[in-house]
Amino acid sequence: MAVYTDISEDELRAFIAPYGVGELKSYKGIAEGVENSNFLVHAGDDTFILTLYEKRVDPADLPFFLGLMEHLATHDISCPLPVKRGDGTVLGELAGRPAAMVTFLEGVWMRRPSAVHCAGVGTGMARMHLAGADFAMQRRNGLTVEDWRPLWQQCLKAHPGMDRDLAQETEALLATLEEQWPRDLPQGTIHADLFPDNVFFLGDELSGFIDFYFACTDALAYDVAVALNAWCFERDHSYNITKGKALLDAYDRVRPLTDPEIDALPVLAAGASLRFMLTRLYDWVTTPEGSLVVKKDPQEYIRKMRFHRTIGSAREYGLDLHARKSA
Amino acid sequence: MAVYTDISEDELRAFIAPYGVGELKSYKGIAEGVENSNFLVHAGDDTFILTLYEKRVDPADLPFFLGLMEHLATHDISCPLPVKRGDGTVLGELAGRPAAMVTFLEGVWMRRPSAVHCAGVGTGMARMHLAGADFAMQRRNGLTVEDWRPLWQQCLKAHPGMDRDLAQETEALLATLEEQWPRDLPQGTIHADLFPDNVFFLGDELSGFIDFYFACTDALAYDVAVALNAWCFERDHSYNITKGKALLDAYDRVRPLTDPEIDALPVLAAGASLRFMLTRLYDWVTTPEGSLVVKKDPQEYIRKMRFHRTIGSAREYGLDLHARKSA
Repeated sequence: MAVYTDISEDELRAFIAPYGVGELKSYKGIAEGVENSNFLVHAGDDTFILTLYEKRVDPADLPFFLGLMEHLATHDISCPLPVKRGDGTVLGELAGRPAAMVTFLEGVWMRRPSAVHCAGVGTGMARMHLAGADFAMQRRNGLTVEDWRPLWQQCLKAHPGMDRDLAQETEALLATLEEQWPRDLPQGTIHADLFPDNVFFLGDELSGFIDFYFACTDALAYDVAVALNAWCFERDHSYNITKGKALLDAYDRVRPLTDPEIDALPVLAAGASLRFMLTRLYDWVTTPEGSLVVKKDPQEYIRKMRFHRTIGSAREYGLDLHARKSA
Repeated sequence: MAVYTDISEDELRAFIAPYGVGELKSYKGIAEGVENSNFLVHAGDDTFILTLYEKRVDPADLPFFLGLMEHLATHDISCPLPVKRGDGTVLGELAGRPAAMVTFLEGVWMRRPSAVHCAGVGTGMARMHLAGADFAMQRRNGLTVEDWRPLWQQCLKAHPGMDRDLAQETEALLATLEEQWPRDLPQGTIHADLFPDNVFFLGDELSGFIDFYFACTDALAYDVAVALNAWCFERDHSYNITKGKALLDAYDRVRPLTDPEIDALPVLAAGASLRFMLTRLYDWVTTPEGSLVVKKDPQEYIRKMRFHRTIGSAREYGLDLHARKSA
């Protein structure tokens, strides 16, 4: 739930004027996204999403995020298209914050994705990776292996009474990942946060991707590992191999995974689960009581972290290695 | 900020089917309204507001609220029109809650209303009162003079350490209002919650009224008194007589106030300020820390309560008695 900043009609009218989208007809704060303030805006005959970037987003990164959306939208990947002002720029300022308007994307996100949706996100992600290959800008992943230990240390500092077993387990996994993290996998532009609420469907068809505010330049297979964590576990935290197979096979048919990517998948998936465990834990131990922010339980990702430690090969995630070899 | 209940696409698809509005295209929780969960829904080529009625709304009252919106919308008052299902009913059930869909109304609510907007709401409210005159249903105002003392006693019980001056002041005002409350004023269907966030404008033109979930059968002039409290004070709690005059004169031109209504205005306005002070105070002392509900400060209405106690006649609110007599 996220509207951190309210805006007045006067401010908004002045803000949208240079975008040439017509008269302001209505705007409503929407209860989605946890980092920024989002409004659904009707102007002229069109619908837009207006985003005010709150303090967790570095303004220096905005040209990368908005440039990527524009690149993908113009390369046949359905995602919000930043609206340009008369002077060709997309980024403005509203209520003292950087702000941008993007086109509205129809579609609903799947609260309970099925294997069909997992296949859809696999196919769509692979297409997005191919389309992103010639995107000219670069951005370092700010939440990759080197960033996890400092984040973990901040968690410990904020919450000195951390559970001992969890602490030992995390330290051990950190050490393993720092040693084993693959450095030579195919790189590209990744979404890095492909959770179900960032992928829209119309019926069973994927209708688009949103929320590129963690996008960065990193191993493509890491994006696959994030999605595996986000889409292929049940509510009881058990891994659903039918969904895993659907996602991996669909991805692999559009952009065949390389052998080093396949070998690295268990390590990447363990890393992805640690990354989300750590950011959730950090929010958990640092968000004051009474805050309006909904805190996500780190437990879910502690369970996933443990699961990935039991995996020996990508076959156990459901990837059909036999079909690949005979193809 | 209000989305208390999330819904899945399957549930929503099943819910909207009987309304015959076409395929579900998108839905977003919106951060407006404090009593219910609201979603902006795109289906077919249209936009709707879907409301899930949470526990503070009595389901037995819903036919009155929805019937009133339909009555007004078909009598030239711009407000959301409840959408009917194939069987002619408007009320359904979603996620275990009563739920209804209404048409979407364009317009923005004024964070900083000017005298022009105050005149707009005065005119619009008078028209709404005339249009509501032949609405067949009745509903008792559940927050009128007899309800205030029990509510105050609940506040005291929940917060035994209540400020002594405030307690004395409230008790004194309660006693005065119980004695002086006018019983013979013209009755009708009133909105009873005409705050700026419930009135939309396109430019300076009023485009509609929303949120009829406090509407009831009561003195028409009480609605005027609520609006006077909600629209005609500045952020520093000072009364703006230019705005008051704009609102009252505009109302009076469409539906002339009777002499007893004019005489009663200071008492009604003090009562309205006590009513909102008490519900805010109740929420303040009973809402647990850490709740997602934004608590509104009762102080604002304590200040207004004090102001109305200084008023001797409706002229001091800005009503142009001279113009009325010479008209």
